[in-house]
Amino acid sequence: SAGNRLAQQIDAILIVFIVVNVGLAVLETEPSIGGVYVWEIFLLDIIAGSIFAIEYLLRLWVSDLHPPLKKYGPLKARVVYALQPLSVVDFVAVVPFWLSLFFASISWKSLVILRLFRFLKIARYSPAVRSLVSAVVAEQRAIVGSLVLILGVVLVAATLLYSVEHAAQPEHFGTIPAALWWAFSTLTTVGYGDVVPVTAAGKMIASIVMLMGYCLFALPVGIVGTAFAREIHSRDFVVTWG
Amino acid sequence: SAGNRLAQQIDAILIVFIVVNVGLAVLETEPSIGGVYVWEIFLLDIIAGSIFAIEYLLRLWVSDLHPPLKKYGPLKARVVYALQPLSVVDFVAVVPFWLSLFFASISWKSLVILRLFRFLKIARYSPAVRSLVSAVVAEQRAIVGSLVLILGVVLVAATLLYSVEHAAQPEHFGTIPAALWWAFSTLTTVGYGDVVPVTAAGKMIASIVMLMGYCLFALPVGIVGTAFAREIHSRDFVVTWG
Amino acid sequence: SAGNRLAQQIDAILIVFIVVNVGLAVLETEPSIGGVYVWEIFLLDIIAGSIFAIEYLLRLWVSDLHPPLKKYGPLKARVVYALQPLSVVDFVAVVPFWLSLFFASISWKSLVILRLFRFLKIARYSPAVRSLVSAVVAEQRAIVGSLVLILGVVLVAATLLYSVEHAAQPEHFGTIPAALWWAFSTLTTVGYGDVVPVTAAGKMIASIVMLMGYCLFALPVGIVGTAFAREIHSRDFVVTWG
Amino acid sequence: SAGNRLAQQIDAILIVFIVVNVGLAVLETEPSIGGVYVWEIFLLDIIAGSIFAIEYLLRLWVSDLHPPLKKYGPLKARVVYALQPLSVVDFVAVVPFWLSLFFASISWKSLVILRLFRFLKIARYSPAVRSLVSAVVAEQRAIVGSLVLILGVVLVAATLLYSVEHAAQPEHFGTIPAALWWAFSTLTTVGYGDVVPVTAAGKMIASIVMLMGYCLFALPVGIVGTAFAREIHSRDFVVTWG
Repeated sequence: SAGNRLAQQIDAILIVFIVVNVGLAVLETEPSIGGVYVWEIFLLDIIAGSIFAIEYLLRLWVSDLHPPLKKYGPLKARVVYALQPLSVVDFVAVVPFWLSLFFASISWKSLVILRLFRFLKIARYSPAVRSLVSAVVAEQRAIVGSLVLILGVVLVAATLLYSVEHAAQPEHFGTIPAALWWAFSTLTTVGYGDVVPVTAAGKMIASIVMLMGYCLFALPVGIVGTAFAREIHSRDFVVTWG
Repeated sequence: SAGNRLAQQIDAILIVFIVVNVGLAVLETEPSIGGVYVWEIFLLDIIAGSIFAIEYLLRLWVSDLHPPLKKYGPLKARVVYALQPLSVVDFVAVVPFWLSLFFASISWKSLVILRLFRFLKIARYSPAVRSLVSAVVAEQRAIVGSLVLILGVVLVAATLLYSVEHAAQPEHFGTIPAALWWAFSTLTTVGYGDVVPVTAAGKMIASIVMLMGYCLFALPVGIVGTAFAREIHSRDFVVTWG
Repeated sequence: SAGNRLAQQIDAILIVFIVVNVGLAVLETEPSIGGVYVWEIFLLDIIAGSIFAIEYLLRLWVSDLHPPLKKYGPLKARVVYALQPLSVVDFVAVVPFWLSLFFASISWKSLVILRLFRFLKIARYSPAVRSLVSAVVAEQRAIVGSLVLILGVVLVAATLLYSVEHAAQPEHFGTIPAALWWAFSTLTTVGYGDVVPVTAAGKMIASIVMLMGYCLFALPVGIVGTAFAREIHSRDFVVTWG
Repeated sequence: SAGNRLAQQIDAILIVFIVVNVGLAVLETEPSIGGVYVWEIFLLDIIAGSIFAIEYLLRLWVSDLHPPLKKYGPLKARVVYALQPLSVVDFVAVVPFWLSLFFASISWKSLVILRLFRFLKIARYSPAVRSLVSAVVAEQRAIVGSLVLILGVVLVAATLLYSVEHAAQPEHFGTIPAALWWAFSTLTTVGYGDVVPVTAAGKMIASIVMLMGYCLFALPVGIVGTAFAREIHSRDFVVTWG
């Protein structure tokens, strides 16, 4: 229908707006951009802050008409809506800017993390992101179990390397927390190479840790990958309500 | 049949030709080869340019006989054929060379990327490459969703490390775009090690980012891997028309 | 039931206790913590040692009431229970501390690996960890086969690089055991970069090794991942007895 | 049966022998071992050479009794057997040693790669390795297709980085073959970090290459992983003949 087409166009415009806005928050930290186009950026911040504020208020206003919320009264329906995860994201994406505008002591620039919250607003328009969240929720027990296992291996690896290497490299393996940095970067196969075992025993243990990292990789793939693929395909047959 | 055997042999010769040609474009940048065998390489370029030009013109000539294109007139059939992706690849693989030959201002050597386009011609002869393209097209929504998610995590990781490390390492984490380089290399588990967090907070956040990269890996595997395996096997029962 | 609720609460308290305890063993190696809060840590060690000892003794005491062990007499049931893997973990988690307390020649601090054994106690409360163990046991033949294969590729890669690079880099590729360190870090895609081939032949062989590492990755994923996912889901329908 | 038990025990002894032998070939390159235990190693080499020679000759001798070869005459059956892959491995594992013993000009030590061929003999006793070979053969078209694709991406990545970075880093990106080294180490997510883009354009292209490497990983997993898992399980129901 025409209403549906209009809704899709507004969605597309809002997505472009979010991406431009997040890109701006990123580029602003570059002095050659953030230091030069001060007023242009401020103007765009005000426009974005206004649009997102209007979007939020409109969504809140009409939320008592949504079928699942109709049963509550007009006030309670809006409170229930405002507490949904996506509404909280909308709220956090818009409020800090206006606070920083009215209270000089809060610098909007320092709220760079909150500005990136706007990126999460894309989740509202992306069924794939919602599918992933569903997959993670559905498999939460298996994911927690895998994380416990991976953390256990990281702990044991760090402690072993600490025992073996802390005499040879006190600056890198002097404490277990320091060795944990090596263990994480090795087990996830990132392998920065800033900290590397130098003793023969350390290299042998590290080789086994690498092999384990190589194999433990199978766990998230087996769990999240399968569940995500399942969610994506089941979505195809379900009418979603944003 | 004998005609079929001949076609297969011509295909095999053309594949060898493409590989030799691409290999030459790569080796030519090595001064000890490109600077010495100038005339031999030029000769091979002319031969390759001629063969690919003749192949393209012949394919275009007979394209109005292909069953799916017969319904159009002789001219429209050839236009439709010329606009198909594989025909565009054939065209781009051959035209720049002849342009550079006749217009001295365009150096064929500087068109090194266009020369590698010839490698894409192999796709015409490889069902597996076509299967992958089909798999990617079939799962495009899931792939876009995963990319949005991965980019979101990269953005958040870069911003967090920027907040935590930009005082300690202004040369590496001085701006968010600079931190993005670190975030990409960490989340994809490449881990060059040219940029590494040094503060305790930075290392803790980086460890979580590594773990997320380790787990998010499951998404492309779950989506592309499964779809590709499915395409490959369904191909076995389908007669393809090149 | 109320008894069930109480059991769950005790389980939760014990998990928190284990995590605190392992975290303490890790942090203690940091001089700014282990050197300052000497008495506080000693006190916590005594409390943990007591709780885990009481837990172990109580479990051993009531073990003859468990249905599968009832058929043995009261003594034999307890011996059978004490030899189960989880009971051995409980035992190893508690005994070294008390030995180090009574025999001054054994330093509890030096037993840092044994202290981390307490982390394994979490396996008792995590069905996911038990599922992984089941999956590994069920697929042990395939896992051993993959490991043989991966080790074979590592050996061949190390020997080839040793042949090609040991003249150019005697300090890194002077012996095959030294080259093995490179081969492990490359094939598992960790890639520290502390040892890198420098000759053209070495780089070509290394590129093939990287590609093989990239592909061999498929083995653990295909085996462990699938088996783990299967175990996790079959667990859902099984009443477990801890 | 007793004969079966004896065969299994001989198999186990031979596997241990192979592992000891390969381990020795590796350790011999370490001067502190290879330079000291000269005679002990020579003795072990003679024993291994004799055992493997006797094993090969016995297997060849009785090969005309194997049911699938019975139909040939006694001579042709042995020739057919000698040309099977596993027999060739047995032959290559044993002949070079005896040649080097009788012809002084060939140094056994320099044949280090041929000595590692003995490791391949383990394949005879490992159903998992044979399953992997079957899986690779069954999926050869898909594997070749994936490799073509991965090599195409490597080529394009190397050429792009060469165009963008060869002015800034002529020592690392001065030619496309040099850039290929970077492309392989990045796309396979190894990421040594010895060669890293420094320009903004180079880093942006490199980020996309990393993301592609992260996603292309799905191909071998989807193909080899699934096929291997299938082979492993089908093996369970098949009586194999070594």
